[in-house]
Amino acid sequence: MSQTSNYGRDDGPMDQLIRAFANLPGLGPRSARRIALHLLSRKDSAMKPLAHALDHAAETIRTCSACGNLDMADPCRVCQDTSRNARTLCVVSGVSDLWAIERTGAYKGRYHILGGLLSALDGIGPQDLRIASLLERVRHDGFDEIILALAATVDGQATAHYITDRLHGNNSGNQAVKITRLAHGIPVGGDLDYLDDGTIATALKSRA
Amino acid sequence: MSQTSNYGRDDGPMDQLIRAFANLPGLGPRSARRIALHLLSRKDSAMKPLAHALDHAAETIRTCSACGNLDMADPCRVCQDTSRNARTLCVVSGVSDLWAIERTGAYKGRYHILGGLLSALDGIGPQDLRIASLLERVRHDGFDEIILALAATVDGQATAHYITDRLHGNNSGNQAVKITRLAHGIPVGGDLDYLDDGTIATALKSRA
Repeated sequence: MSQTSNYGRDDGPMDQLIRAFANLPGLGPRSARRIALHLLSRKDSAMKPLAHALDHAAETIRTCSACGNLDMADPCRVCQDTSRNARTLCVVSGVSDLWAIERTGAYKGRYHILGGLLSALDGIGPQDLRIASLLERVRHDGFDEIILALAATVDGQATAHYITDRLHGNNSGNQAVKITRLAHGIPVGGDLDYLDDGTIATALKSRA
Repeated sequence: MSQTSNYGRDDGPMDQLIRAFANLPGLGPRSARRIALHLLSRKDSAMKPLAHALDHAAETIRTCSACGNLDMADPCRVCQDTSRNARTLCVVSGVSDLWAIERTGAYKGRYHILGGLLSALDGIGPQDLRIASLLERVRHDGFDEIILALAATVDGQATAHYITDRLHGNNSGNQAVKITRLAHGIPVGGDLDYLDDGTIATALKSRA
């Protein structure tokens, strides 16, 4: 019997619903069953609003052709916003990183979403990411600063290295664009005792 | 800014989708954002199948008027199955408990779903559960045995007590129906060292 099947029977709409939920990230057969039962006992107050939200989002939300953000408009509202600094570009891995930076309110420039990170293990190469369009954008729009806001992981740092190399090659002849990265250090509210040695050493080295 | 809002902006289809997911049991704003992004990057392979599964389940799945089970047919396929023993009734709290018992394959009788447990704290009284229809069913269908397969919690045992009292009152005059409960004891595969004292004491007392 399949893990997601509720009875040992033919595959009904209940099994299909549970399987669709069980395939979502962070959910398994048990949580999918719980969600399916929750929805079926609240058809009008929860199930129909969710189905409507899915349909509505699938129809209206598209990928911004400039930066790769998800929005109802193309170019997206971040790209259209003329009050934002058009001379600074922040390169992030995914839309959730853009959201995380937007929630801080500390950045008012443009974004470029790579759609992932280079990963030898997962077989993700430069052609799988939006790197060509990044180079094209930098060549065409002429930014003063490019912030590589990528994860402090092996893949994130390898991606930052690769992009830095390509951008430097790209700018040979033009004035060199300034490439910066997020600072490494102690997280705000972080307790020294719980931090890894690498972070503490970096924070000491970069002290100001 | 709301916890579920991705930007500090007006409420778009993305925010509505994230909020609909964040309201599901076991999910919060962060997992809802992750699921929404997962779906939007897989519109055809994940988002549309989920929306279709929701619509299809909402249209086709109904509550069985006899036992309270969720199924495409009313009466449900468990109630319709003439190969099952119609003289034994298993009383469970919810549909997920029925599924759990069905997965074992160890029970081949009928079910009655209460739709919850009596709870003084949550203000759930007998009129909120399908107890009246249980009494009516027992009076009308005449079972040999009623298994109260309810949780070994305060609420579960209070509900079992209440139903036992009502069934005994119900059957004054008729032949007395046999009322049983699930055995308490050591879970199969359970290590004595990790079990609570009450379970071990009960298992000792009920040794066979």
